Amino acid sequence: MSTGRNQGLPGEFELIARYFAPLAKGYPGAFGLLDDAAVIRPADGRDLVVKTDAIVSGVHFRPEDPPDLVGRKALRVNLSDLTAKGAVPLAYMLDLMLPRDVEEAWVAAFARGLAADQAEFGIHLIGGDTDSTPGPISIAIMAFGEVDIGRMIRRDGARAGDTVYVTGTIGDAALGLAVLCGRDSRPDPTSAEFLIGRYRLPAPPVSLGPHLVGLATASIDVSDGLIADLRHVCEASGVAADIWSDHVPLSEAARSILARDPDALQSVLSGGDDYQILFTAGPAAADTLAVLAREFRLSITAIGQVTARSDQASHCVSVFDPKGRPLPLDREGWAHF
Amino acid sequence: MSTGRNQGLPGEFELIARYFAPLAKGYPGAFGLLDDAAVIRPADGRDLVVKTDAIVSGVHFRPEDPPDLVGRKALRVNLSDLTAKGAVPLAYMLDLMLPRDVEEAWVAAFARGLAADQAEFGIHLIGGDTDSTPGPISIAIMAFGEVDIGRMIRRDGARAGDTVYVTGTIGDAALGLAVLCGRDSRPDPTSAEFLIGRYRLPAPPVSLGPHLVGLATASIDVSDGLIADLRHVCEASGVAADIWSDHVPLSEAARSILARDPDALQSVLSGGDDYQILFTAGPAAADTLAVLAREFRLSITAIGQVTARSDQASHCVSVFDPKGRPLPLDREGWAHF
Repeated sequence: MSTGRNQGLPGEFELIARYFAPLAKGYPGAFGLLDDAAVIRPADGRDLVVKTDAIVSGVHFRPEDPPDLVGRKALRVNLSDLTAKGAVPLAYMLDLMLPRDVEEAWVAAFARGLAADQAEFGIHLIGGDTDSTPGPISIAIMAFGEVDIGRMIRRDGARAGDTVYVTGTIGDAALGLAVLCGRDSRPDPTSAEFLIGRYRLPAPPVSLGPHLVGLATASIDVSDGLIADLRHVCEASGVAADIWSDHVPLSEAARSILARDPDALQSVLSGGDDYQILFTAGPAAADTLAVLAREFRLSITAIGQVTARSDQASHCVSVFDPKGRPLPLDREGWAHF
Repeated sequence: MSTGRNQGLPGEFELIARYFAPLAKGYPGAFGLLDDAAVIRPADGRDLVVKTDAIVSGVHFRPEDPPDLVGRKALRVNLSDLTAKGAVPLAYMLDLMLPRDVEEAWVAAFARGLAADQAEFGIHLIGGDTDSTPGPISIAIMAFGEVDIGRMIRRDGARAGDTVYVTGTIGDAALGLAVLCGRDSRPDPTSAEFLIGRYRLPAPPVSLGPHLVGLATASIDVSDGLIADLRHVCEASGVAADIWSDHVPLSEAARSILARDPDALQSVLSGGDDYQILFTAGPAAADTLAVLAREFRLSITAIGQVTARSDQASHCVSVFDPKGRPLPLDREGWAHF
């Protein structure tokens, strides 16, 4: 359905046939995008896990960002949620709202990005909608994954005594955005390129997700920021958490910025957009997690501890510096140093 | 996930808690919108039918349209597809992109509209995302329905000899939009109100849909326009179709406009946005369809015939006037009289 067409582009049906139908070839229930709806059914004994996130030009990505990376980011901000929930990604649907002046080359590159991630993650486009908008490029994706019935990893299972873990490195996306916006004292070119790359193309550990089922007691993706997302877990679970700031895993590039500008720790802890996985697990999980980290060649770092919730505490997440002093955090979870 | 917040609104989490979490109460797998994803599983022996359509302010609805009707329209443009596919609607997800100047009252009324349709159609919100946009209000909905395994009604099953049927009345939405845009010679106030109402709030025959399984050989919702959508069916099915223009079911209001302005037939045949169901069925289905029409108190009208496709024909849909003369149609299916 689309009542408004983009004058600078081929017609809606041509656009779909040229760029999007090829992305649906591998999934029979997509009917080649030639029907009104798609059919999906989880395997016996499995639940479908469903998630939607939208990204908007000028808000979640920058207009000049390479369109192939925009496509992949639109997908990955959804795949990170499936990963956090322990689900194997299967398929996705796409709503693409395009202003009239967008060029066909943009759409072609955007679709190439989706194709690259389909190959990387073994997923398929199964439906969607293209529309005109008088506003900026806006992309809504709905992702489907699969998990054993009743085994989706929830936010609300963290227990006092659990360890808080995070995958990959934290803060790179926020620092990359700061570089892009000229808000950061210039890092060296290699670091700048790395950080901008992490902002434009998050790398959620998709293959790890299903292995966290039965290990993680609670899990969430780091999209709002490390502290904010840990707070979501704590509030859902009725617990608190202590984080040791010097345990938060940093890339070389982030470390070099922090060495010059210690206040950048605020961006690292609260910046969001990393799309790594933050989870809690009991003591018995440590050995298995170490094996998984080796197997998937990714870092899984213990950054803190789940504690019992105290009624007196004004916030449920506390961050401690290397000397054991609490860093001040406001109600929103943002750290003001 | 939302990195940008609307300054004129409560925060994202407050907005969700206040207006959207109540819409998820009836569906356990929605986890009260308090987790990162939802869980859905079709009943044994059933497929999930999934569909997404987006609507954008200034394109698919008008900025001054009542927000409760905008919410219901956003849902119904998806429910019409599920209906055409023979599916029973179950649930939906919502991406809501809001400009910074939108008022909380707009969101409250929008959510009230969703609640009204949830009650009417027995569906539940199970997930979503709210985001800022520098553009117009944009709403993407993904709807989930259920149908017996392998029984989704496709577009490609129409056979020569089938009858072409349509539900409800056709052209009201296009004529209503013409009135709203001042493009129409003014109809009487009652007709104007009726037609505008049909543009703002389509009424797909949702309860009929599942009864078409096993009866309809092909089916589609009328969103692009009667001729364009019938062409989609013919192309997918490898057939052609003849339509008798005087059989196309019209409301009183549409009839009064056509009486004054016969050229308005063009809007009726090609205007789109009715979200009624266009389907084909063999001769044996006629009696059952008559019973269903009575049972559901809706009109199901035979408007033409499926024919064998001729290689010479430049188009696969032909429309004949009451004297049996073909009306000229261009390649796009638009009628130019």
